Amino acid sequence: MTATVAHGMLAGLDEIDAVGRDSRAGGYSRHLWQPADFELRSWFVERATRIGLAVETDRNGNLWAWWGRPGPNAVVTGSHLDSVPGGGAFDGPLGVVSALDAVAALTADGFRASRPLAVVVFAEEEGSRFGVACLGSRLMTGAIDADRARGLTDAGGITLAEAASAAGIEAARLGVDREALDRIGLFVELHVEQGRGLVDLGRPLALASSILAHGRWRLTFTGEGNHAGATAMSDRRDPVLAAARAIVAVNDAAVASDGARATVGRISVVPGATNAIASSVVAWLDARAATDAATRALVADVAERVEECLVGSGCAVTISEESWSGVVEFDPGVSTPLATTLGGLPSLASGAGHDAGILAGLVPSAMLFVRNPTGVSHSPAEFAETADCLAGVTALERVLRSVLAVPVPRETVP
Amino acid sequence: MTATVAHGMLAGLDEIDAVGRDSRAGGYSRHLWQPADFELRSWFVERATRIGLAVETDRNGNLWAWWGRPGPNAVVTGSHLDSVPGGGAFDGPLGVVSALDAVAALTADGFRASRPLAVVVFAEEEGSRFGVACLGSRLMTGAIDADRARGLTDAGGITLAEAASAAGIEAARLGVDREALDRIGLFVELHVEQGRGLVDLGRPLALASSILAHGRWRLTFTGEGNHAGATAMSDRRDPVLAAARAIVAVNDAAVASDGARATVGRISVVPGATNAIASSVVAWLDARAATDAATRALVADVAERVEECLVGSGCAVTISEESWSGVVEFDPGVSTPLATTLGGLPSLASGAGHDAGILAGLVPSAMLFVRNPTGVSHSPAEFAETADCLAGVTALERVLRSVLAVPVPRETVP
Repeated sequence: MTATVAHGMLAGLDEIDAVGRDSRAGGYSRHLWQPADFELRSWFVERATRIGLAVETDRNGNLWAWWGRPGPNAVVTGSHLDSVPGGGAFDGPLGVVSALDAVAALTADGFRASRPLAVVVFAEEEGSRFGVACLGSRLMTGAIDADRARGLTDAGGITLAEAASAAGIEAARLGVDREALDRIGLFVELHVEQGRGLVDLGRPLALASSILAHGRWRLTFTGEGNHAGATAMSDRRDPVLAAARAIVAVNDAAVASDGARATVGRISVVPGATNAIASSVVAWLDARAATDAATRALVADVAERVEECLVGSGCAVTISEESWSGVVEFDPGVSTPLATTLGGLPSLASGAGHDAGILAGLVPSAMLFVRNPTGVSHSPAEFAETADCLAGVTALERVLRSVLAVPVPRETVP
Repeated sequence: MTATVAHGMLAGLDEIDAVGRDSRAGGYSRHLWQPADFELRSWFVERATRIGLAVETDRNGNLWAWWGRPGPNAVVTGSHLDSVPGGGAFDGPLGVVSALDAVAALTADGFRASRPLAVVVFAEEEGSRFGVACLGSRLMTGAIDADRARGLTDAGGITLAEAASAAGIEAARLGVDREALDRIGLFVELHVEQGRGLVDLGRPLALASSILAHGRWRLTFTGEGNHAGATAMSDRRDPVLAAARAIVAVNDAAVASDGARATVGRISVVPGATNAIASSVVAWLDARAATDAATRALVADVAERVEECLVGSGCAVTISEESWSGVVEFDPGVSTPLATTLGGLPSLASGAGHDAGILAGLVPSAMLFVRNPTGVSHSPAEFAETADCLAGVTALERVLRSVLAVPVPRETVP
């Protein structure tokens, strides 16, 4: 990105370009309530305040920048600022920066809104610190039990409750936030696309039609720690070998299920010594498919294949669910009028989860995708052309003008 | 262990029982120049000083506790205090504690030695922090190039040179220490056995006959980081899947080679996110066999099988050697007189590497093994019966009495 695009738009991406760089993995590692996240929150407050918004932090650590008095039937737009480890520059921040730019364009223009508006930053969308994606929106909506959430731990054993307290959030108050939820009349999240759907369509923008069902499972393999040199091959109960066979089986199961996706991208070997057979291995499974039933069937198939792999290995496995998100169908009653406002836009299914997917079952929600020329995401190589990003800001601004212009009684919003 | 064994012997194991406990992996994580290692070094200095020894730290961070004036033709005994991550209580410390107890028994007795004696603690025997096993003895003997060693890095990217400086060791002086080496007339290392050889023989003690050839290789798999949900199975270049297939191939290669051992016990996935296909994976290979040629052949076979695994994966692999130790045959001219002194002892081959193996090519060296009832080592479950440990101390004391009693001109030591 360069800061010299039209009217200073997208400059926010440049302003946070140096925050949370990851020298080992490349790209960015920006995780909840760690230094980079605090720096991004401060940047957001400063940025939003500069264009006349008033920022508040809700009971779950989500940020809301209000234009005018917070109130019912509000139009809310935004995304998240956290990243996967070694993530790209666009996943999350593009939606926040575009929202601020679109609102700035409205305020600079003297536009008078008939409804309240807020730019939101959801906390821990990637689940990189505490393992559950969309944690801020899940807490707000009750999609995760607050007690369970408080007990989630990060890699250093710190609980969410402890991390929240350290960040000035009252841990006991984490959980369903009816007040915040009831204020939302419409939520629109702009996001970089994470596949090649728009490239294939030859279009810069689309509206989301659906999100694959998806979830995370923890596979724990236990064997017997021992000496790598003194232990004959026939005497081993090696959980690394068991996990390796299981990872091959995970791939086989996904390939066998049309359109399904299964990934192991995180592995922890205990103790993790070059000269020791491990005692245990945890491998995290990310599994997704087009329907809830297909996803459940995929995970059941994985479990069966993994158990087969372990026969004769002397190792055992336990599989536990860490999170689950059923398939999301965005309401055409919400999306179609927005598409019409924008002169017609294609619809696109998403393989990636989003906060808008968590909210969609409870409040009118829609998503705008911006073309990703390579389809690569969750990687330092993630990219979007400036022209496409600007088209996204313009589209979002038009949507906001449209929905903010006419006083809409809440009951008429589908 | 309990502190109440005969004459306070082995109490040293109790004294360090709480140092470097690893609550995640279990057992102990005691790594070079980290807090637990500093605490163990202080303990050793205090312990050795209490029985009248004078402790010095050599240019490579090894500790020498001298009885009398440091000098040529010295009898040296000892082992190491560092551990693998999540290691047991005996691997290393048993040799140091037994050496101190044996010497304490001699001094308490008014025994007058005709040769200098030292108890040695070698640094970083497990290679857990900087990746090269027997680092202290390798540096002293020149078995590792000092410049290469200075550039070794730990998991946090700190070089050995930086860590040495921080510990008060002059990094420029790391390397061959002829003075320290030339003083050694005989080195005897007592160590817990790390297999079931003595259990099978029904004996508490043995002398080492040989050490398997062994080494460490780093396998780096590169693919393409991407989104776990948005990337179709057919579009992936997943290095975790490639590494999993390779780990299965490593096992197949070892099983196919009689008596060989190959292990992957440490894996690093970058970036290591549940919802991201990784961009790269490093898996460390520990490979061992009865001869140098057999070990080289094993690693060549592994390399060929791993390349085969990668066909069609879109991933690449590079394999680099991190350390190499040729097969060690302990000189029967050194061991046999010791066995005779002890009324006859069996000989046992070792699958594990030891500092005595590094020294054996340069100075007369021998090893005493103490029975391990389960054979489990490099694990919190590692164990030795107190009676066997005491038999080890007594045997070491008898060996020391024997070799220290008669002035032996250096040239007669084989």
